[in-house]
Amino acid sequence: MHSHHPQTLQWNGDVSGHLILIDQTALPLNITTVDCRDLESVVHAICVLQVRGAPAIGIAAAYGICVGLQTIDIHQCTTQQFEERLQHCVDQLANSRPTAVNLFWALQRMQDVARTMRQAGQLPSQIMKALLNEAITIHDEDRTMCHAIGKHGATLLDNGQGVLTHCNAGGLATSEYGTALSVLFSAQDQGKTLQVFVDETRPLLQGARLTTWECQQRDIATTLICDNMAAQVMSEGKIQVVITGADRIAANGDVANKIGTYGLAILAKHHQIPFYVAAPSNTFDLSLSTGKGIPIEQRSGDEITQGFGKQTAPDDINTYNPAFDVTPADLITAIITEQGIISPVSRETIAALL
Amino acid sequence: MHSHHPQTLQWNGDVSGHLILIDQTALPLNITTVDCRDLESVVHAICVLQVRGAPAIGIAAAYGICVGLQTIDIHQCTTQQFEERLQHCVDQLANSRPTAVNLFWALQRMQDVARTMRQAGQLPSQIMKALLNEAITIHDEDRTMCHAIGKHGATLLDNGQGVLTHCNAGGLATSEYGTALSVLFSAQDQGKTLQVFVDETRPLLQGARLTTWECQQRDIATTLICDNMAAQVMSEGKIQVVITGADRIAANGDVANKIGTYGLAILAKHHQIPFYVAAPSNTFDLSLSTGKGIPIEQRSGDEITQGFGKQTAPDDINTYNPAFDVTPADLITAIITEQGIISPVSRETIAALL
Repeated sequence: MHSHHPQTLQWNGDVSGHLILIDQTALPLNITTVDCRDLESVVHAICVLQVRGAPAIGIAAAYGICVGLQTIDIHQCTTQQFEERLQHCVDQLANSRPTAVNLFWALQRMQDVARTMRQAGQLPSQIMKALLNEAITIHDEDRTMCHAIGKHGATLLDNGQGVLTHCNAGGLATSEYGTALSVLFSAQDQGKTLQVFVDETRPLLQGARLTTWECQQRDIATTLICDNMAAQVMSEGKIQVVITGADRIAANGDVANKIGTYGLAILAKHHQIPFYVAAPSNTFDLSLSTGKGIPIEQRSGDEITQGFGKQTAPDDINTYNPAFDVTPADLITAIITEQGIISPVSRETIAALL
Repeated sequence: MHSHHPQTLQWNGDVSGHLILIDQTALPLNITTVDCRDLESVVHAICVLQVRGAPAIGIAAAYGICVGLQTIDIHQCTTQQFEERLQHCVDQLANSRPTAVNLFWALQRMQDVARTMRQAGQLPSQIMKALLNEAITIHDEDRTMCHAIGKHGATLLDNGQGVLTHCNAGGLATSEYGTALSVLFSAQDQGKTLQVFVDETRPLLQGARLTTWECQQRDIATTLICDNMAAQVMSEGKIQVVITGADRIAANGDVANKIGTYGLAILAKHHQIPFYVAAPSNTFDLSLSTGKGIPIEQRSGDEITQGFGKQTAPDDINTYNPAFDVTPADLITAIITEQGIISPVSRETIAALL
């Protein structure tokens, strides 16, 4: 995003500082920020999607540990008190959303730092400083990874192509630039002109509210459609590439991503359009052999029936609202990571790159 | 619908009477009616979808001729004045919505009646009575056709199946009972229990607002999903049949229907789920060799960005809002008509049945 906008996430101050987030639920009409000064506000921000997108959730969780630890008297507490508080923070953050693995990856990194320092005999105050440094490092690394994903992915796009994306895998889903959108932004930086189509992405409309906003700021030709129009737009020959982000990728290349991604991948295959997934390597969960093991978050039906400020269905209607789906590896043309492009997508090619 | 609700369309009175419609834009929260006492109010009702659904639009247009003719002094006017007014009414109604062929079919029937009577030397006042009788006949025939479609289609459904439908092809889209929903209601009448999944159907949410309402009134187990969840629900094994209505069917079996239908047909094929279309024979347009000739209505982008009382996208974002798409015949397992079931769907099997 341009410099006159706040950053998606920003740490303000030293170990006694706090996390500042763009409130993504208010976009695009209002650009406001949320100050998270305690654990609960970070957990809340993740749960209600004030901050969302797999990489951004991971960064927020790392900073969440830092604000969460501020309740203890760092110079007086025992090692055990510090450990207990740290574990409490980890547990609360880990329970905020189940699908994006970057959350658990970031929490693990924070715990690893704390354990290493504890084993080296460091004091809680020293560990706390190291944890803030680790969170800042995670944040900085994400920036680097996003730009590397964009650089690798842009080689797959040609000037003048129509590109369809789903949900928001942009600067708002990451530190900056994004994953799927980083590919588009990097192609633009190389002088390629693209026609971007954006699925509105029901129920929470991250495509309509966030991706269009990011593309508009970069003066990219952007057309908003409803999710159910993608097949028609493909059949009209307007789409040459589909690209999305990912929330978790199993060892065999099955990809969990925002609900609707799986259907798009089937439509792309039917129209012989390449289907790309862009994600940093910390999105891979090699402990899961296939996508069947990925937990899918089920969210409130009110998101469907009360989504637009007006009730849009009868009282008491039953709903089903999975927030994610799993796209099997055989529908994915390539996975674009910061380390390079994985194609074809298989257990072997993934293991070879990572 | 149950008798305590108003009918989708009702003519009130004799040749000087008027058309009463359920205002479908207010459903499901408010059950209100609109009195159409002039041509303009009927055209408006069709344009803004107070009345919608291919068969219901045809019936409304027929009655629209009857109210439209009331501006002339039927006992004093010349044959030429009558003819000119009739042509004006036909033109205005024909321009209301382009895709559903039932509109043009009904207008043609009305014109044919007028021409036949004129050729027989009948007076305008007699022609006007005959036109109201013809509109009532079209309305009555639709009732009969809907029930026949249901009876034929119900043979395709088994007890306990999961059925996915899109948009609204129910009693609100027809005189009563519907086309796709008539199949479900008829199966229920036969004692079969179904699990019905309803796509909300963006942008105007006819699934969320209308189909759920009709199913709920009949105590059918109904689950509302967003359009982009259909693939996931199919992959979970919850759907054994997909069934939709149609707005126009070409001679080769290509089907124009609410945007999103084409994508659903591709998803059904991928999951090896039968895809059925239910429509009366007046939905066929045998003058069109294939679906390529079907005009697709483009509607305002405000339906996407301002849909339900809240702006959901940035100012000035470009949109694409086709109201319909065309599903090629080879993705359709069967077309269910009042005359029987067409399967496989081809130029030959269609010609044989009609």
